[in-house]
Amino acid sequence: MNNYRYFFRDDYSEGCHPRIVAALLETSFTQQIGYGNDDYSAEAKRLIRAQLPGHDVDIHFVSGGTQANLVIIAAALKPYESIISARTGHINGHEAGAIEAIGHRVETVDTEDGKLNADQLTPFLTQLGHPNSTQPKMVYISNTTELGTVYSKAELTELSAFCRAHGWYLFLDGARLPSALATPDNDLSLANIADLTDVFYIGGTKNGGLFGEAIIISHPELKKGFSYHLKQRGAMLAKGRVLGLQFRELFRDNLIFELAAHANTRALAMVPGIEKLGYHFLVPPCSNQLFPTLPNAVIEGLAKKYVFHTWQQIDAQHAAIRLVTSWATPGAACEQFVTDLTMLSGTA
Amino acid sequence: MNNYRYFFRDDYSEGCHPRIVAALLETSFTQQIGYGNDDYSAEAKRLIRAQLPGHDVDIHFVSGGTQANLVIIAAALKPYESIISARTGHINGHEAGAIEAIGHRVETVDTEDGKLNADQLTPFLTQLGHPNSTQPKMVYISNTTELGTVYSKAELTELSAFCRAHGWYLFLDGARLPSALATPDNDLSLANIADLTDVFYIGGTKNGGLFGEAIIISHPELKKGFSYHLKQRGAMLAKGRVLGLQFRELFRDNLIFELAAHANTRALAMVPGIEKLGYHFLVPPCSNQLFPTLPNAVIEGLAKKYVFHTWQQIDAQHAAIRLVTSWATPGAACEQFVTDLTMLSGTA
Amino acid sequence: MNNYRYFFRDDYSEGCHPRIVAALLETSFTQQIGYGNDDYSAEAKRLIRAQLPGHDVDIHFVSGGTQANLVIIAAALKPYESIISARTGHINGHEAGAIEAIGHRVETVDTEDGKLNADQLTPFLTQLGHPNSTQPKMVYISNTTELGTVYSKAELTELSAFCRAHGWYLFLDGARLPSALATPDNDLSLANIADLTDVFYIGGTKNGGLFGEAIIISHPELKKGFSYHLKQRGAMLAKGRVLGLQFRELFRDNLIFELAAHANTRALAMVPGIEKLGYHFLVPPCSNQLFPTLPNAVIEGLAKKYVFHTWQQIDAQHAAIRLVTSWATPGAACEQFVTDLTMLSGTA
Amino acid sequence: MNNYRYFFRDDYSEGCHPRIVAALLETSFTQQIGYGNDDYSAEAKRLIRAQLPGHDVDIHFVSGGTQANLVIIAAALKPYESIISARTGHINGHEAGAIEAIGHRVETVDTEDGKLNADQLTPFLTQLGHPNSTQPKMVYISNTTELGTVYSKAELTELSAFCRAHGWYLFLDGARLPSALATPDNDLSLANIADLTDVFYIGGTKNGGLFGEAIIISHPELKKGFSYHLKQRGAMLAKGRVLGLQFRELFRDNLIFELAAHANTRALAMVPGIEKLGYHFLVPPCSNQLFPTLPNAVIEGLAKKYVFHTWQQIDAQHAAIRLVTSWATPGAACEQFVTDLTMLSGTA
Repeated sequence: MNNYRYFFRDDYSEGCHPRIVAALLETSFTQQIGYGNDDYSAEAKRLIRAQLPGHDVDIHFVSGGTQANLVIIAAALKPYESIISARTGHINGHEAGAIEAIGHRVETVDTEDGKLNADQLTPFLTQLGHPNSTQPKMVYISNTTELGTVYSKAELTELSAFCRAHGWYLFLDGARLPSALATPDNDLSLANIADLTDVFYIGGTKNGGLFGEAIIISHPELKKGFSYHLKQRGAMLAKGRVLGLQFRELFRDNLIFELAAHANTRALAMVPGIEKLGYHFLVPPCSNQLFPTLPNAVIEGLAKKYVFHTWQQIDAQHAAIRLVTSWATPGAACEQFVTDLTMLSGTA
Repeated sequence: MNNYRYFFRDDYSEGCHPRIVAALLETSFTQQIGYGNDDYSAEAKRLIRAQLPGHDVDIHFVSGGTQANLVIIAAALKPYESIISARTGHINGHEAGAIEAIGHRVETVDTEDGKLNADQLTPFLTQLGHPNSTQPKMVYISNTTELGTVYSKAELTELSAFCRAHGWYLFLDGARLPSALATPDNDLSLANIADLTDVFYIGGTKNGGLFGEAIIISHPELKKGFSYHLKQRGAMLAKGRVLGLQFRELFRDNLIFELAAHANTRALAMVPGIEKLGYHFLVPPCSNQLFPTLPNAVIEGLAKKYVFHTWQQIDAQHAAIRLVTSWATPGAACEQFVTDLTMLSGTA
Repeated sequence: MNNYRYFFRDDYSEGCHPRIVAALLETSFTQQIGYGNDDYSAEAKRLIRAQLPGHDVDIHFVSGGTQANLVIIAAALKPYESIISARTGHINGHEAGAIEAIGHRVETVDTEDGKLNADQLTPFLTQLGHPNSTQPKMVYISNTTELGTVYSKAELTELSAFCRAHGWYLFLDGARLPSALATPDNDLSLANIADLTDVFYIGGTKNGGLFGEAIIISHPELKKGFSYHLKQRGAMLAKGRVLGLQFRELFRDNLIFELAAHANTRALAMVPGIEKLGYHFLVPPCSNQLFPTLPNAVIEGLAKKYVFHTWQQIDAQHAAIRLVTSWATPGAACEQFVTDLTMLSGTA
Repeated sequence: MNNYRYFFRDDYSEGCHPRIVAALLETSFTQQIGYGNDDYSAEAKRLIRAQLPGHDVDIHFVSGGTQANLVIIAAALKPYESIISARTGHINGHEAGAIEAIGHRVETVDTEDGKLNADQLTPFLTQLGHPNSTQPKMVYISNTTELGTVYSKAELTELSAFCRAHGWYLFLDGARLPSALATPDNDLSLANIADLTDVFYIGGTKNGGLFGEAIIISHPELKKGFSYHLKQRGAMLAKGRVLGLQFRELFRDNLIFELAAHANTRALAMVPGIEKLGYHFLVPPCSNQLFPTLPNAVIEGLAKKYVFHTWQQIDAQHAAIRLVTSWATPGAACEQFVTDLTMLSGTA
């Protein structure tokens, strides 16, 4: 019933990559210790660490992004400390108050493209030491951002330097980090991310897994007692093996980056066809999320064949929609979409 | 490396039942709406409701037991209200302070067998209306309990009546409910549980699933806004389909109860052999957890071939160990265990 | 050392009105029951209720404004519910995260004058029912506002109607409510406030008391269990008599409103002299807070004789300062201030 | 109406010592900076520090005991850390869940006399490092205890050494510390308390003040950001001068200890008369709280003339009552009580 139209709704509309199912099948009857102390989790961590030579990181696997966000922030902040985020950041307004529920204020910055820089953070310095103010202590960014934009190495380096100068933690939400690292112009490596942030995670959910995020902690202070935080917030799976097994597969032969590149390629392949029709994008397309601005009538027409979010009303006649491709999106769906858009645009 | 010995450590040492893997394989490329609004979750709910004729329940799927506990309790209690539990209850001391972290006091009762009754709850009535006291508002029980004991219909009926007389919610942690309902002497049905409690859950993790608990809410007050609580606590999976699919398989043809009966049968098959050697049990065996009291030397001998928890020191020479069987435990492992125990007992 | 300059810094720079000290002296050796169950608190409540004929309100006394705010909000909201405030509202950014620390998000509105109206609240309706959003359930206003502005009866009536139409609680922070009700153009009575809001408080701290706020609850849902909230948040004084005694004195012969009128009169007496010099105010003056915009050099000159806050930088050469008068401000201090300002303005 | 009988109900039934009222009167019109930055608070801190030569402590004044407890514990513990208390400790079960409301578990110890020692704490060491357990990090004691008993220097030294050996904070609730230090056999000084604990407070409320506790922090880790915690929990009074002024008076000429000695003397003067009648005490009397065990009929008789708490039912015919004297208790009231008890005992 949900299935009669093609979904460009998000990157978690499908199940998981066949290699993961195969691994589940193969290991079902093997006994393992619970709570993440299984062989598969150990192997997954070895594979991730192999991409971080010389780094001393702690790695933990959790079920989802909101869970990762709230456990990390609970572990990092004292009760009176706050976290700064772009207004579009997932932790601000998209998690039903998850961060406030663990006691912390999210301080927000208005941005054009969902990215933060040092200039935007500077005004928060005035709060430091002020007895009536929350004390900012962590900066939250996402890469790719909620608008599909990415950080360059220069940008992340500058942001990192600013945070370190002020004793602030830099936390990168990487639910779509594989997509960011697989964009054509990317100049960041996973090791750079580990260098420049204090904690980040790599999303499995949106990159071919059933569910799961791999949290990677560099800062010694954030490593302390992390398992207790996980347990206390209900984030520790009895069969932690299921998470370990997925990340083992995703990191074997760099499958996760291959899948992310697939998703990016599919999205970017639609761009010329859309631009050719004279349409513009809310932000320049570079990853697996596109935000074309279209006439209302065209959007209505598309909605008969495709499922997607209307992101933002632009004016009375136009809105930006969000199109998301995934590791499983076939080329034919994208081609058909452009064809349909072209037809609708001719008649609209 | 973890695998060289046989595990009677818990009922989550293996992966999942083959039917679940098959369903994952079959559905991987089907697109579904996220966050639990998929067809498989809908089908799973239909199958569960079919066992609850005439009941108006809300059903939600979450990843694990601690998560279920904390979301349910967060949804039920005002800040000054508390929950009563047996001291052995999972929420008391086994979840790294999960309930306190959401702001609530766990009031405890010392019990012999992990079960609660009206007499044990009566003293808490004196707290009601006392301005310096937390106000008990919910009673937490588990079935089977953490000691493997079960509630009879008469016991649960009496407890339910007491709670209702005082306006208290009755919450049943059913991480091992399938096991309880599959014990030989059980006289409770799933519909009885829904009648006599206000909210309960059915564990998938310990009964053949990869992970997941099905929360079933009867009380109208507890239904309100439950999805927001799930989202806020990081308990809502983007690919909720993975939970739906598992419970669809587990409830199709009553697979979950069949698997629980298997686990019970395996454990209970060991009882005569253990008793024949003159050993006693901490509590009378009736489900898939056994707590035999053994001499230290015998325990040391067993530990070379088997993995299990030492539950409780009895005296300088003896301890009770915990043996747990699962949906996947082969008969041969149980027979071998009794054989080994017999040999060790002869020489000990 | 702190005393060599005159303070227009705030309305809590002095101690308390002599009648309060006299009452303390007179009652020191009289024994009373603790925790607010004393005769003086009972008498204070009778005096307040006498101004609210036909109203069925609960009254509780607490030590301060942040305490009042956090207890009221903790009592009103479920974990996923939020409160809407003007960005300038005291609960937003001036209480070191007090509201977030009890688990709730403060949703903010940019305003010109610190006041809220229905149009500004309308956008928040889109959050209702959205699974990823906090659910607004309470609106926070202050009267006088943090900018010294006041609500008219018509404005408060419209706001109240909007909140009731959407099932939202309306909460009025009245730390300076006596000042608001004592402004020359005021058309609201205390009974109107009780009619149009669901809960409000009347500040003693800023109106001649040593400390203390009287919380007045109209909505039946907010009355439930309020004493437990007070106790739990450390807001219940053992010698509650000290709060009762102060409010007894403040409400006897309407002393509190007389003191507020004094403060307003003192501030407003300075306005013509300031305007005559060609200066403007950030918001039109109407109560005991003035926000004149002055040249930097003049501000520096004033700071040698007076203590006040610089509120907001206007441009490179100008800033708005805040001048606050109190129940104890002598007329001579105000006259001298205008004289000094005139002299400095001549030379500046 | 509340006043017709004499209160031995608690040590906060009267107002405050006349010297405090005189100081309030004298300073009412003096302007001071708010939030604890006033001259009186500075002077009070100087007087307290004079009793702690060579100590580097931070001092903060708050309104009451529950507030002190919750702010100190919020400042000390990470979310998964817990605090150990005697079951009779005030934070356990007498503060409507205040500690749980800020997210922490109170671990309890059954005691005879309300005091803790190293042997009783040793079992909690097994929780350390256990992934499912809260991690104890602080030990809460009170002196005098809730049963009126006191710690000797040897006892406190042993407890302190144990806590330091395990990296646990030792926190002493001194709501009745002046009483403890004024008992005849006391061998502890205020400087000893500062040496042997990491944080403690001295109660003004129960020792002649209107309200207020002086928090004294020795451990550097607990000093960090304490003002933010105060502000966030609503514990920072705008007119902090009222707290400063009280402690200035209470510590000038050691008034606070003189008042505590008065209270102790009054209580202990009743002991011989009570013992002479053949009655026993629940715990040996040594400070301003007495717990005599009396026949029910005698208790009923006393209740016609005196107000007190019935503390604990001993058997069907007897109960222990609690008698508390204060800084204001006249000798005549105590003598009359013994006379009345003697008469009632003759006829009972």
